[in-house]
Amino acid sequence: MGERLLVIGGDAGGMAAASQARRLRSDLEIIALEKGSWTSYSACGIPYLIGGEIGAVEDLVARTPQEFRDGFDIDVRLHHEAMAIDLDRREVEVRDVDRGGTSRLGFDQLMIGTGARPRTPDIPGIDHPAVHGVQTLGDAEHLLAHARHIEAKRVVVVGAGYIGLELAEAFTHRGADVTVVERDREVMRTLDPDMGALIREAMCGHGVDVRCGVETLGFEDGVVRTGDGDLRADLVVLGLGVVPNAELAGDAGIELGAGGAIGVDRRQHTTAEGVWAAGDCCESTQLVSNRKLYVALGTVANKQSRVAGTNIGGGYATFPGVVGTAITKICTTEVSRTGLSEREATRDGFEHHAVTIESTTTAGYLADTEQLRIKVVAERTSGRLLGAQIVGGAGAAKRIDVFATALHAGMTVEQMTHLDLAYAPPFSSVWDPILVAARKAAEAVAEGDHMKPGR
Amino acid sequence: MGERLLVIGGDAGGMAAASQARRLRSDLEIIALEKGSWTSYSACGIPYLIGGEIGAVEDLVARTPQEFRDGFDIDVRLHHEAMAIDLDRREVEVRDVDRGGTSRLGFDQLMIGTGARPRTPDIPGIDHPAVHGVQTLGDAEHLLAHARHIEAKRVVVVGAGYIGLELAEAFTHRGADVTVVERDREVMRTLDPDMGALIREAMCGHGVDVRCGVETLGFEDGVVRTGDGDLRADLVVLGLGVVPNAELAGDAGIELGAGGAIGVDRRQHTTAEGVWAAGDCCESTQLVSNRKLYVALGTVANKQSRVAGTNIGGGYATFPGVVGTAITKICTTEVSRTGLSEREATRDGFEHHAVTIESTTTAGYLADTEQLRIKVVAERTSGRLLGAQIVGGAGAAKRIDVFATALHAGMTVEQMTHLDLAYAPPFSSVWDPILVAARKAAEAVAEGDHMKPGR
Repeated sequence: MGERLLVIGGDAGGMAAASQARRLRSDLEIIALEKGSWTSYSACGIPYLIGGEIGAVEDLVARTPQEFRDGFDIDVRLHHEAMAIDLDRREVEVRDVDRGGTSRLGFDQLMIGTGARPRTPDIPGIDHPAVHGVQTLGDAEHLLAHARHIEAKRVVVVGAGYIGLELAEAFTHRGADVTVVERDREVMRTLDPDMGALIREAMCGHGVDVRCGVETLGFEDGVVRTGDGDLRADLVVLGLGVVPNAELAGDAGIELGAGGAIGVDRRQHTTAEGVWAAGDCCESTQLVSNRKLYVALGTVANKQSRVAGTNIGGGYATFPGVVGTAITKICTTEVSRTGLSEREATRDGFEHHAVTIESTTTAGYLADTEQLRIKVVAERTSGRLLGAQIVGGAGAAKRIDVFATALHAGMTVEQMTHLDLAYAPPFSSVWDPILVAARKAAEAVAEGDHMKPGR
Repeated sequence: MGERLLVIGGDAGGMAAASQARRLRSDLEIIALEKGSWTSYSACGIPYLIGGEIGAVEDLVARTPQEFRDGFDIDVRLHHEAMAIDLDRREVEVRDVDRGGTSRLGFDQLMIGTGARPRTPDIPGIDHPAVHGVQTLGDAEHLLAHARHIEAKRVVVVGAGYIGLELAEAFTHRGADVTVVERDREVMRTLDPDMGALIREAMCGHGVDVRCGVETLGFEDGVVRTGDGDLRADLVVLGLGVVPNAELAGDAGIELGAGGAIGVDRRQHTTAEGVWAAGDCCESTQLVSNRKLYVALGTVANKQSRVAGTNIGGGYATFPGVVGTAITKICTTEVSRTGLSEREATRDGFEHHAVTIESTTTAGYLADTEQLRIKVVAERTSGRLLGAQIVGGAGAAKRIDVFATALHAGMTVEQMTHLDLAYAPPFSSVWDPILVAARKAAEAVAEGDHMKPGR
């Protein structure tokens, strides 16, 4: 008998590895288990589905089970859930969700791509049917069906991170009154509060009621109880982030790492021989601080999974880590970040300077120019770029990629002032805002302690 | 008496240095000579003025002479032309353009920012009044007045570089029939022909008649004679690039360098003590090939000039060079490039691999997604990124900045496959097109000679 690769999880974390392994090894037997109904979809597209910009759930599917079978000779088994991993016998216990009953399936190599699930606070009514977490395409279908059925008019979103704010906007597109409740003092905690405030203002400008510094206490029929009083709600959406589905691996004795996610080395190999993990279920490395961290993003899942697949297929590939780049668009406001925020820099022991500049997305004399603000965090003395945040109109946020690339390269902000960035009036002012920000940061570093760096 | 800085040229090349020197030294006497009527303007904005997107010439002026006088204590003398530099006596001979007559003006430090002028072919009729070169704001005023006066309906643009194509588009906005005549086999010679072809197709789609491989032979009343027959024309615009105004420096014995431009060191210092140069009159260094080159761009002028000003002011600053980034938008098509094209890589002795990928500017399932094409050139064996070119719809071209940053950092295409670039559906597919292109290039490098690298 040939070698068998068993894949747990039908989304990017597992399936990008499966298809990459197939490209390298035609002889491998590949079986993929997915407890839900979908494979390889864009979870990031869910807000656009809820908001009605995408017509059908199927539009978000990158590859169907049939395409995996036909194009990659992968035996995809939907509605099959992995219940336990037996490392000694090299078997997985599998439950047939539709018919019930379990069976055991052997493996030579095991790819774990079990993803993540919405974080749920331990408060009264968290299991109320009106309360939805949204992580999988199945979750999205369920939420959309419910919203349509009750013709939801009052929606409360708990948590003002990326997903929370994107779903808040989506429900405004559906004509609902939307309130966002956030415990922290400002929205978008992955940015510093001064930048988060810009996003909150923009959302309020689009008619979303954003309440920061407010605790959510519980859910009852038609009501969300908060520290700031009761809110009426037909539907509640949780946007509190996700936790890794790492219990399956942990129970099998595989070591867990950052944020309780599955620990992996540079090749996405776990502590168990021949067992790999990738995506929202496993940890990453933050290259700026050289710390392990947990991040659940589609880009990371795809990169990690492809690396795992290359290694499973007998090649050599590594995933060095992330610099912490993220982007979103909330109504007409673009938001992005990379590296460390001031808060994170302080936590990680970096003394730093932070500067903020304002500029425009195009030459200021063009009619359609948009405002943008860039914040740059640089290490004290060394001047090394630590991170950047951007908030602005159309054309603002994707500029973050320059900062991300500079972080990968370990550039100083002074070196960044020399960057030969593209300029023509429809794209930039003659000093690209990035150069203006880098220059201001370099000046702050050069002036040193006179500027009172943050700690 | 205090020290005097004399500046020749009132645009960015000279004036960014003047204002930066002022920031560092309040004691300096600063006099600036400008033979025309304008200071510190955006020459890159001229096509938008011609096309009517900008209403007034003044909109393109970043700082007026009065602002330089009031804000920077700089004595700006319009309509004063520097005729000769006497390095021994440290004097400049100055002609009063309005009143006639010359006088001599001493200097301690001299900043040369004499800019460039349109390249004019040596063919019959080149001095015909219907034939316009466009470099200064004065040129633009003249062209605009002429076009309005004769209500130009048939415009021929000679040369299909950035300026030529931008002016061609501008005249279509004015309702003219526009023909572009280009001697080379394809438009936009700073890109490779396969990418240039995409731009030509786009322009033809917008109703511009583009004729490549056609020699321009001469100009007569109402006619442009070409190797492909006569073209009717009310107005002719030259888009053949520019040549540096370096004669003034050269005649004074200052050494000239790449492309006949003024030679400078890393601090923008010329071969003459206390004489500095910046902008379109002086050379740069191409950091990818480590060769001197001549490039006339507003970004470079501003950076060089600021560096010169810091050094004049007693500080220390260097301009390491450029990676050759440029961008433009022709009708709805965005175009950008950085580093070396295949043609340039071959000329500079780099054996290389070139790959091209097609992708979309946003997640492919969104309605407003646009196509884009990226070409990547990587060095054989080392895999070092040598250059990139992008052509596509809205959101495509500014991505070039990531390649530019990677070039500054000396990254390999394999390293680029790890870049943590921002992804959300409105901004990118989950694999940013840059990552797809880098991966394909890395594969080509890894497969090595099997791929038959270009020479």
